[in-house]
Amino acid sequence: MRFKIKSRIWIEVDEHVFLGGGRVRLLKAIEETGSLSKAARSLKISYKKAWILIDSVNKSANEPVIVSSVGGKNGGGMLLTPYGKKLISTFDDINHGCWNYLDTQLKKLENL
Amino acid sequence: MRFKIKSRIWIEVDEHVFLGGGRVRLLKAIEETGSLSKAARSLKISYKKAWILIDSVNKSANEPVIVSSVGGKNGGGMLLTPYGKKLISTFDDINHGCWNYLDTQLKKLENL
Repeated sequence: MRFKIKSRIWIEVDEHVFLGGGRVRLLKAIEETGSLSKAARSLKISYKKAWILIDSVNKSANEPVIVSSVGGKNGGGMLLTPYGKKLISTFDDINHGCWNYLDTQLKKLENL
Repeated sequence: MRFKIKSRIWIEVDEHVFLGGGRVRLLKAIEETGSLSKAARSLKISYKKAWILIDSVNKSANEPVIVSSVGGKNGGGMLLTPYGKKLISTFDDINHGCWNYLDTQLKKLENL
């Protein structure tokens, strides 16, 4: 096969981006590090930019996606809610399904 | 439905973009106008940029996509080859299939 079909998907709410690849990477980094500042650093974006992205996701979502954790050994950090975790896994699931669909279409291009 | 899932697809050859939404719009504009300069103007891109895009498509394709037309009332213009037309309709077809797939996935997001 000479061709590859690539794709990018994103979810919109009220004509605004709600969730796309970049926001999902940020949410995963928060889940890994438990901290918005560490997550921002790992993705090489500013804390301010990371905060704006997370705030935008939380405001558009049906339920909170990220919450501040209080107390415990990770006190002051940030946590994905169960809804946030389901949202990420559903996004990944739809994205993989899209890639699988596109792979089935490759032969149409090769056989033109 | 509050959510919409949007997508962008593009085709790569040897890790380089071969065809995406912008190049398809340019090819369609050439088909309509019969002229690279008119097509470039209608898309508000420079002639040079349009020429580079078309050259890149032609060089990566299995067969020529665009050829110069010689003589006749449109002499000196540009024409899509039959291969070029099939390529565009296949791209559109795959793109619509992708949107249809994504529409079937929406309920997963609503039901989280």
